[in-house]
Amino acid sequence: MSSSPAFLPTAPTSGRGFFVTFEGGDGSGKSTQTSRLTSSLVSAGRRVVRTREPGGTPMAETLRGLVLDHGHGPVDARTEALLYSTARASHVAQVIRPALQRGDVVVCDRFVDSSLAYQGVGRGLGLEAVAELNRFASGGLVPDLTVLLDVSAEVGRSRRRNGPGQEDRLESEPDDFHESIRQAFLSLAAASPERYVVLDAGRPQEDLAQEILELVLRRSGGDA
Amino acid sequence: MSSSPAFLPTAPTSGRGFFVTFEGGDGSGKSTQTSRLTSSLVSAGRRVVRTREPGGTPMAETLRGLVLDHGHGPVDARTEALLYSTARASHVAQVIRPALQRGDVVVCDRFVDSSLAYQGVGRGLGLEAVAELNRFASGGLVPDLTVLLDVSAEVGRSRRRNGPGQEDRLESEPDDFHESIRQAFLSLAAASPERYVVLDAGRPQEDLAQEILELVLRRSGGDA
Repeated sequence: MSSSPAFLPTAPTSGRGFFVTFEGGDGSGKSTQTSRLTSSLVSAGRRVVRTREPGGTPMAETLRGLVLDHGHGPVDARTEALLYSTARASHVAQVIRPALQRGDVVVCDRFVDSSLAYQGVGRGLGLEAVAELNRFASGGLVPDLTVLLDVSAEVGRSRRRNGPGQEDRLESEPDDFHESIRQAFLSLAAASPERYVVLDAGRPQEDLAQEILELVLRRSGGDA
Repeated sequence: MSSSPAFLPTAPTSGRGFFVTFEGGDGSGKSTQTSRLTSSLVSAGRRVVRTREPGGTPMAETLRGLVLDHGHGPVDARTEALLYSTARASHVAQVIRPALQRGDVVVCDRFVDSSLAYQGVGRGLGLEAVAELNRFASGGLVPDLTVLLDVSAEVGRSRRRNGPGQEDRLESEPDDFHESIRQAFLSLAAASPERYVVLDAGRPQEDLAQEILELVLRRSGGDA
């Protein structure tokens, strides 16, 4: 898309703060690791905003409900991709950019890469179309670090089934869908090695948490 | 954006049906003329779907509420453009394309051109960025005929103030905003003369209705 007027927030970098995103299939442990990282960073004296997508603002939460709720009937692929990117635009403008401008660490469960994997590859819309849509939505914001928690489709499924409550629309997809998503994430990681760290989600949670914390402290310029 | 897989609905033309959209500022009489045209076409034996944007499906109506409701606080320009295009994707997939494929006439109050005028020009996002977003959302659907009801900002304002109820977010913008929207519509019309018909909204409603009906009957291949 064409470049936007200067008054729109289009800075690709995070300014003074540090923006770390977690990606991976359902059951990969993103929620656990974002929680642990946030606690450790706060203990280390950092100001942290922990958030998630789709969601993070009242409007985005409403949109999240429209995507995941079976009640609205089948959602076509384009509408689904647009719902996620609209929620992202609201989230970036109202929560993520202001936090980064304050100098905070932002820890986000899923971001643009999830849309690339799920809508671009999983739903067949194409990586480039979904990437362009999300460059518009995010104003070109790119994470400083993305942690991919890589988990096989089988392990992910068994973890999801151990969880409470019903599976939502994406979680009820068959195994080959989840494996295609896994491969999409691995390809995205391979294409951006300077931004991505790929970790085996099957390792002990404590080990993973320690490695991620050290990584974030080192990359965000705070070894202490 | 890159081309989409073949299974997605991307046909740029309306198939067997006929797709007519009405554009123009608030107070230009779109609602009156879409209603008159629909009645006359039905009387002439046509199957007609009359609809409007943003809206037309349960999901789109929810999104319309998010755009126009002051309760969610200020909506940034990108999020606003994405809300409208998401509603459009749902509307096209669930209502407009199925109707056109059945061979119906679809009469729609506002479509992509409104986004180009209001978000592309009015909100400063740029025509090309908003056009590309909407090509994605609509799958490239273009109306067979677009009727621009051209009205000066002053006349539009006096008509809006005669109406019942409170003004919504867009209607409460100052005159120079409405004049910039008017000029944006006129430029869009000048750029697509084969698709656009520009009519002076100050003419008697009966005259306008007759001219529009004859135009639609002629262009849609039904002179009878």
